[in-house]
Amino acid sequence: MANPVPMAEIWRGAFLESVHHGHAVICDESGQIVQAWGDPHAVVLPRSSSKMLQALPLVESGAADAFGLGQEQLALACASHQGAAIHTDRVRAWLDHIGKSDDDFRCGAQEPSDKDAREALIRGFEQPCQYHNNCSGKHSGFLTLTRHLGAGPEYVDPSHPVQAACLEAFEDVTGATSPGFGIDGCSAPNHATTLHGMARAMAFFAAAEEGQGARASAAARLRNAMVAYPELVAGEGRACTELMRAMNGRVALKTGAEAFFIAIIPERKLGVALKITDGTTRGAECAIAAILVKLGLLEADHPATLKRMNTPIRNWNGIETGALRPASALL
Amino acid sequence: MANPVPMAEIWRGAFLESVHHGHAVICDESGQIVQAWGDPHAVVLPRSSSKMLQALPLVESGAADAFGLGQEQLALACASHQGAAIHTDRVRAWLDHIGKSDDDFRCGAQEPSDKDAREALIRGFEQPCQYHNNCSGKHSGFLTLTRHLGAGPEYVDPSHPVQAACLEAFEDVTGATSPGFGIDGCSAPNHATTLHGMARAMAFFAAAEEGQGARASAAARLRNAMVAYPELVAGEGRACTELMRAMNGRVALKTGAEAFFIAIIPERKLGVALKITDGTTRGAECAIAAILVKLGLLEADHPATLKRMNTPIRNWNGIETGALRPASALL
Repeated sequence: MANPVPMAEIWRGAFLESVHHGHAVICDESGQIVQAWGDPHAVVLPRSSSKMLQALPLVESGAADAFGLGQEQLALACASHQGAAIHTDRVRAWLDHIGKSDDDFRCGAQEPSDKDAREALIRGFEQPCQYHNNCSGKHSGFLTLTRHLGAGPEYVDPSHPVQAACLEAFEDVTGATSPGFGIDGCSAPNHATTLHGMARAMAFFAAAEEGQGARASAAARLRNAMVAYPELVAGEGRACTELMRAMNGRVALKTGAEAFFIAIIPERKLGVALKITDGTTRGAECAIAAILVKLGLLEADHPATLKRMNTPIRNWNGIETGALRPASALL
Repeated sequence: MANPVPMAEIWRGAFLESVHHGHAVICDESGQIVQAWGDPHAVVLPRSSSKMLQALPLVESGAADAFGLGQEQLALACASHQGAAIHTDRVRAWLDHIGKSDDDFRCGAQEPSDKDAREALIRGFEQPCQYHNNCSGKHSGFLTLTRHLGAGPEYVDPSHPVQAACLEAFEDVTGATSPGFGIDGCSAPNHATTLHGMARAMAFFAAAEEGQGARASAAARLRNAMVAYPELVAGEGRACTELMRAMNGRVALKTGAEAFFIAIIPERKLGVALKITDGTTRGAECAIAAILVKLGLLEADHPATLKRMNTPIRNWNGIETGALRPASALL
């Protein structure tokens, strides 16, 4: 079991103030490791980086087509959105379309991280709803599949048909039996796997094409929806959205809580999975950007890149006090 | 150079999801290390954990007495406050008292982290001022000393008499020449030292008594002000405030950015300094709580303790999904 390696450094003046360590794996479509940092066999909870896997049953079951879901809905099913109007308007319309309401969600209410949406709630002395939850697109997908299957309302129960279908798909594309699950922030089960397993699953999404069968078709449609609507997968200003745009749809990206990040690279049929072991998002964003630059997919001097790596740290007066930089192993 | 050791663990279900590593030192009044974890010689920027050191010249110069500052002002001089009315009202009165205004500050404007204050600004479509900055108490001290010395307005310049006095005091009580400084979030120089140096300085504060000379008297007065007004050092709900209250004034505590934490323990003339190397506050709060429990100063089952260690992690539905626990080295 290899130790995690330094991946991102926080400098202040001449001093290395903080360091983020992590594990990362790049995998090809045959499931072979192309490159690894740290321990590829580390067991991880991929958190929201597994949303594409959790959306496979929605598409391959025929539920998505039965309800006429388009790319916008499929992108939202894979999203950790920030509760901006572009997200919540679509989620509410989707709920309406399937004859469900906010009360049918099981994700819990969450204050939106979108500044305008959050401040509007504060000014109106209003409380956030479940549709503001960053996972409400995934849960709209769960509710759609629930209705399609005629299953019961407690769709986040690990024994519910929706979650059983998610586990089957998860184990299939990661290529291994999951050692168990944790309960996610949105109350759905989040299955564990190795970093290698997640990278293998992402390589499956990278190589998938429509017409190769139900599972691969579903994977291709979800991946294509993510790159077609990067603003629905996260939101303005966010890493997934800005970095996907910077690569002009060549790569699908998805963050996860506690510093997970994945990349799906169709043109090379490669998948990337990484975890910063301390759970800090700035470290994961810097590390995935560095790997994408190293792979020649992301320009090092693109403004979206420079917000995540080789990033000046500025203080309350706007004075540059330091920088966030990738560690040497990722250069 | 010893590696940092695991100090805090984030569990989700049966899975260890994230880990924080760090260095820590407990020092006695003679400067000897009583106990250490990781590398006591690691060079660190103590950030706001050094505010008591930066307040020494304010008191020992006679400036504090010349302007009639009381314990409330001395506590604010050592504070990283959250911009609540109890903080900003006192800072504005202090400015007024020394004939200065918000424009004389050099700390920059910062949105208050206090919920009521922040939401009041949002509802009023108002921008935060410099007095909202978490360091505005320290800067009020700097301005007071500046006026007392008849020095120029650019008091955060490293060559300004105020900063020269801070450096002299810093090197004296840490017992070593500082290897340099970084610029802090509030634009003041923040001097580097070793973790051992910071623990030695904290032991000096722990052993200091009034009447032992200007420097020790100043240290004793600042420490006593911190424990007398824990709500002014941080604010309601915050770790420094709640943990100081939980120990009934027996220990002074101060956090710093990028996961620094110190403790001053007068009854044992001990100082503690710790740094979580990834810079994550939850890790530093868990580790300092665990060390204080281990030292028999903090009750393990006190509600303030249980918010920082052995803490249930709950999701948007209030379901317990995991826990934040100290690592075995701190038990």
